[in-house]
Amino acid sequence: MTARPANAHQARLLRLLRDGGPSSRVELGDLVELSRSKLAVEVDRLIATGLVVADGLAASRGGRRSHNIRLSPELRFLCVDIGATSVDVAVTNPELDVLGHLNQPIDVREGPVAVFEHVLGMAGKLKATGIAESFDGAGVGIPGPVRFPEGIPVAPPIMPGWDSFPVREALSQDLGCPVMVDNDVNLMALGEHHAGVARRVDDFLCVKIGTGIGCGIVVNGEVYRGASGSAGDIGHIQVDPDGHPCPCGNRGCLEAHFSGAALARDALAAVRAGHTGDLADRLAGTGTLTATDVAAAATAGDAVAIDLIRAGGHQVGQVVAKLVSFFNPGMVVVGGGVTGLGHGLLAAMRTEVYRRSPPLATGNLPIVLAELGPLAGVTGAACLITDRVFSPA
Amino acid sequence: MTARPANAHQARLLRLLRDGGPSSRVELGDLVELSRSKLAVEVDRLIATGLVVADGLAASRGGRRSHNIRLSPELRFLCVDIGATSVDVAVTNPELDVLGHLNQPIDVREGPVAVFEHVLGMAGKLKATGIAESFDGAGVGIPGPVRFPEGIPVAPPIMPGWDSFPVREALSQDLGCPVMVDNDVNLMALGEHHAGVARRVDDFLCVKIGTGIGCGIVVNGEVYRGASGSAGDIGHIQVDPDGHPCPCGNRGCLEAHFSGAALARDALAAVRAGHTGDLADRLAGTGTLTATDVAAAATAGDAVAIDLIRAGGHQVGQVVAKLVSFFNPGMVVVGGGVTGLGHGLLAAMRTEVYRRSPPLATGNLPIVLAELGPLAGVTGAACLITDRVFSPA
Repeated sequence: MTARPANAHQARLLRLLRDGGPSSRVELGDLVELSRSKLAVEVDRLIATGLVVADGLAASRGGRRSHNIRLSPELRFLCVDIGATSVDVAVTNPELDVLGHLNQPIDVREGPVAVFEHVLGMAGKLKATGIAESFDGAGVGIPGPVRFPEGIPVAPPIMPGWDSFPVREALSQDLGCPVMVDNDVNLMALGEHHAGVARRVDDFLCVKIGTGIGCGIVVNGEVYRGASGSAGDIGHIQVDPDGHPCPCGNRGCLEAHFSGAALARDALAAVRAGHTGDLADRLAGTGTLTATDVAAAATAGDAVAIDLIRAGGHQVGQVVAKLVSFFNPGMVVVGGGVTGLGHGLLAAMRTEVYRRSPPLATGNLPIVLAELGPLAGVTGAACLITDRVFSPA
Repeated sequence: MTARPANAHQARLLRLLRDGGPSSRVELGDLVELSRSKLAVEVDRLIATGLVVADGLAASRGGRRSHNIRLSPELRFLCVDIGATSVDVAVTNPELDVLGHLNQPIDVREGPVAVFEHVLGMAGKLKATGIAESFDGAGVGIPGPVRFPEGIPVAPPIMPGWDSFPVREALSQDLGCPVMVDNDVNLMALGEHHAGVARRVDDFLCVKIGTGIGCGIVVNGEVYRGASGSAGDIGHIQVDPDGHPCPCGNRGCLEAHFSGAALARDALAAVRAGHTGDLADRLAGTGTLTATDVAAAATAGDAVAIDLIRAGGHQVGQVVAKLVSFFNPGMVVVGGGVTGLGHGLLAAMRTEVYRRSPPLATGNLPIVLAELGPLAGVTGAACLITDRVFSPA
């Protein structure tokens, strides 16, 4: 069983070492409000637990050279990012560097037992490469709402069979380590905050466009989850009262109009209505069309694909404009599988936001693509679980 | 010059005494993580500053009786809530009880110099009643966006002449005490959180419908102001792309469709179009119609007034439904001058929110009227300034 810090000071030191890497005692002393002697006591106690190790002498800043310390390089965290159609599994060290990463297609509708069989298999393969012997904790993202304190999915619309499944408890038993579970969008936001485009931004929105569409909300550097854990559930905001029917029972929901699934549907309809060109060729080749095909067709200059992406960007942009008016974020990050749609999507979104939201909110507002791609979710999962194991028990 | 606490422990003790009233040292010891001896040191230091005074012996809990302490009953705070057409000025004690309160019609468009002449006159009248000799701080709310750290209005749409006026600095010189300035909607939210309907709720939205419309956002018990202080500016969220033109330059903004001003405009148009009844009688009587007239006419059973309020409630409700999906608040508080519209307005809003937002977000969501009426803003102003003067300098 991995040790846990004994108090808030030790927890803060562990997170500083996680986020800043090996540091000298003097450097840490500059960052925490502890007297020199108190700092020495807490560091020595952390070294006694094995969570922190000595790491030689620091470069001189004049006077006696300070001792470097770092998180134990033996610590390993398992990071799992479950999507609707694929899963990413990674192993990180305590500074959250990804040491190994596997991706595998799955169908989340197979249910939790089948999906976690894949996940455990992938974890075993990563272990077999020699990068980990065991895990000191695991973070898990799922594509649906989570009752966060218990780590249990709550009526996730695209995940039949998962409702109320005790993900956290079951996986914790299988792995023999602490587990934390969150919505995949929140993990993407955490990941981009730790190591991606939002590194220096403490209040921002992260819009993830995948099979569905969701939004991570970061307030003061922490994920805001809302009163019952459903904050950021923007996929069912109405964009058109007379719009497409949505599986949720309403009409005109954002994700019924623009999402990976909606894009594939509209592309298929366009080809069936007689549109020829790159999209039609792709359908003829594979018998199906996905959002990725639309992205590739747009890159190849297909006019219908470009129009679909632009129209979708305007629709997401109209919703994001309302959120920007309301929330006044310091940045809007756009990511998810559909970021292959890239700059055409961003340009349409920006047009809507800059036109509709008040100048005070848009004056310094970057609307940018996520940087970490498939590593955002697993990096966020590593943040989530290390936030936990680097807290007092 | 009023003393300030020396450290975070003292600041926490001052706020506990503000929010909980006179307490025994033992009771405070239960609430803060301080050893008994450290607590005694900090309390004695606070007593030495004059911010805190001894208040006799507490009731026995067995063993030696503990000493009561309280905030100095001499402390006085000036609270100013400036609206578009009237201003509230109040004086509170350090527990934020309102000791005296005046309301006076003003026109905010007269500019800051004229308005603060009224405010200082009202403060003088309150002093003359004997409830205050001087002020230890002042909190001020204005009906427009504020650059919060500096206390300066930023391009407030309904406040010509106020842009960039140094409210905080000017008033601080006039009064000889620290001053904090915020948006009136944020102060209403703070007031309802301190002493009103949201006392036990840490994440909530406060929708204020007055001449315009705005939203206070409370996260973890603190007002969330956004990256540039414009968070909650929902009046210009689009509700109808082909809707009424708005002074902001766009079309179909929420507050162009429903707000005190929009309601008066629509009521006038209905009477001019030939509607007879209570509204027409009121116009004949006074030569003008206000939102208050519409509320009174609805109470008297006027069909057009009732319809206008219901239609407005549906429009605000559609916007609030989007915010509820996004933010998953623990409560939605509805207040402002238009709360005279009361339950017809609430019912229409609830219909939209419960129909449009996801069940997980609406399952336990109270949508309720504000409780404090005109005292919400001044109570919030008192929270704002005491948060400041009860913080380390």
